[in-house]
Amino acid sequence: MAQYHYSQGSSDVLLKNLYLSCDPYMRNLMNKTQGTPSPFSYTPQSVIAGFGVSKVLESGNPDYKEGDLVWGFSKWEEYSMPGITAYGGFFELGTPKKGENVFVSAASGAVGQLVGQFAKLHGCYVIGSAGSKEKVDMLKNKFGFDEGFNYKEEPDLNATLKRYFPEGIDIYFENVGGKTLDAVLLNMRVHGRIPACGMISQYNLTQPEGVTNLAHIIYKRIRMEGFNSADFFHLYPKFLEFVLPHIREEKIVYVEDIAEGLENGPAALVGLFSGRNVGKQVLVVARE
Amino acid sequence: MAQYHYSQGSSDVLLKNLYLSCDPYMRNLMNKTQGTPSPFSYTPQSVIAGFGVSKVLESGNPDYKEGDLVWGFSKWEEYSMPGITAYGGFFELGTPKKGENVFVSAASGAVGQLVGQFAKLHGCYVIGSAGSKEKVDMLKNKFGFDEGFNYKEEPDLNATLKRYFPEGIDIYFENVGGKTLDAVLLNMRVHGRIPACGMISQYNLTQPEGVTNLAHIIYKRIRMEGFNSADFFHLYPKFLEFVLPHIREEKIVYVEDIAEGLENGPAALVGLFSGRNVGKQVLVVARE
Repeated sequence: MAQYHYSQGSSDVLLKNLYLSCDPYMRNLMNKTQGTPSPFSYTPQSVIAGFGVSKVLESGNPDYKEGDLVWGFSKWEEYSMPGITAYGGFFELGTPKKGENVFVSAASGAVGQLVGQFAKLHGCYVIGSAGSKEKVDMLKNKFGFDEGFNYKEEPDLNATLKRYFPEGIDIYFENVGGKTLDAVLLNMRVHGRIPACGMISQYNLTQPEGVTNLAHIIYKRIRMEGFNSADFFHLYPKFLEFVLPHIREEKIVYVEDIAEGLENGPAALVGLFSGRNVGKQVLVVARE
Repeated sequence: MAQYHYSQGSSDVLLKNLYLSCDPYMRNLMNKTQGTPSPFSYTPQSVIAGFGVSKVLESGNPDYKEGDLVWGFSKWEEYSMPGITAYGGFFELGTPKKGENVFVSAASGAVGQLVGQFAKLHGCYVIGSAGSKEKVDMLKNKFGFDEGFNYKEEPDLNATLKRYFPEGIDIYFENVGGKTLDAVLLNMRVHGRIPACGMISQYNLTQPEGVTNLAHIIYKRIRMEGFNSADFFHLYPKFLEFVLPHIREEKIVYVEDIAEGLENGPAALVGLFSGRNVGKQVLVVARE
C-alpha cells in the first residue's frame, strides 16, 4: 500500500489498510539485476508497496471523509489490475479471432482465469494448465475452459499440447516461461501470438532455464510481446464497457485466495511461486 | 531454381539457370522436425529450389522470347529478396523512430547490410556485429554503420553491448540467435522491438543453445516477432518507391559474394553457417 502521511491541521488523510494484493511482479521488484531501475523497486528494509484498499480514518481534505474506502497507488483497486492485464494482453496483443485456439498457463491464477473466460466469450477454443487437480477442475467447472490439465502430471508437455491442439495454437497467453514455453513453441501455428504476461517459473531461479526452441518464432513467424497493466491503463473505459455487463449478467466469475493478517503476508507472497494459492492471492489486513 | 517443363509445340518455356541465391532459410527447409510442413521443404535426392535468374532458351509462349531473362519462383529475382526482407523487418516490425539505437547482428550479410543502411537513412544510431575484421571494416567504411565489432573477439557480449549502448537498444534486428540474443535481452530498452529474421547460429545444432534471459521480454515489455520475406510481398511497390531513388543516388550499396559453378553450390551453402561468405552469397551457374 502506498504510504500516506497525515499531519493534523493539513489537508492530508490518514488511512487504515484493509486489503493488500499479492502479485508475482513483486518478486521482480526485488531483483537488483532486473535491468530497468524502477521507482517502485524494493530494497531490503523498505516497506513493500502494491495495490490495495484502505479506509479513511481522519481527513483534512474535503474530498475524503472518515469511513471512505480508497484504493492504492491512487488509481487502482486490486481487483482491477488482473482485469485490465487480462483484457489488454488478450485482446490488444493476442488479437483473437473467433474459433482460434488459445492456450493459457497458470490458468486458474489472478490473470489466467479471466483470460480463459474472455476467450470463451470471444468464441475461442480454450485449454488451460494448472498445478493441481483442484485447480484443473475449477478451469472446466467454474471458468468454462474447454479442457484443462495438470502440468505436473504431464511428463511430455509437447505430446500433451499436440493432443489438445492437433491443429496447433494460435494464441498462447504466457504466464510461466521455461519448459512450458519451450513446448508451446513447438506447437504454435504460423502467425501465432504470445502475449507475455509473466514467467513465474523463472523468477526464483538463480540461473533461469534455457529456452531452446526460439527459432520457431522465425519458422512460424510468431509475435511475442511482453507487457504489464500500465501499458493498458488508457483502455480502462473500453475495458469497463466490455466487462461490466458480463459481470452483471454473472457471465464472468472470479476466484480469490484470501490470507488474513499482515503477519501472513510474506508466506502468501512466497506461496505464489509454488502455486500454493488458488485464484488471485489477496491479503486482508483488516475487515474494517 | 523452380523447375520449368518444356514440351515442343506447347506454350512452355525452356530456361537456362544463370544465377542462384544461397540463403540460410534453405537450411531449415531440410529439417524434418521444423514444425510446419511446407510445399518448399527439401527431401534427400530432391532438387534444391530457391530464387534465381534464368535465360529463356526456347519458348512456345508469346510472352517470352529467346534470350529473355526471367527470375525464379516466378515472382522475384534474388536481389529483391534480401531487400524486401530488410525493408519489411526493419520498418514494419521495427517501427523505428529517428534517433533510436539499433543493433544488427550478421550485419555484413545479405539482409544485415541493408538494415544498417536503411537505419542510417532513417536517422538512427546503428552498431553491427560480424565475424571478421574484414567484415567489421566494411560495416563502417562501406555501409556507414556508426560502429561495428567482431563478436568472436568479445568474450563478454553483455559488457560489449553496454559499452556501445550505454542507454540501451531500441531495435535489435535478429539474425543469429543464441548467446547474442541472450546478451541483447539484458540491454534492451523498455518497449524495445526485436524483428526476428534468422537465428543462423542455431540451425546446425542438434541441441539448440538455451536462451536464459527471456523474462526480460516482460521486464522491458519487448515485442519480438518472426517473419520472412513473403510476409511483406504486398509492400513491394512501397519498397521500390523507397529504395530506387537511394540506389540511383548511390546512397545504398550492396556487396555480394559470388561463387562460380554449380559444383561449388553445396560448399557455398554450407559456408553460410560458418560465415565464410562476405556479403550476400550468390552462385553463378552460367554468365549467359
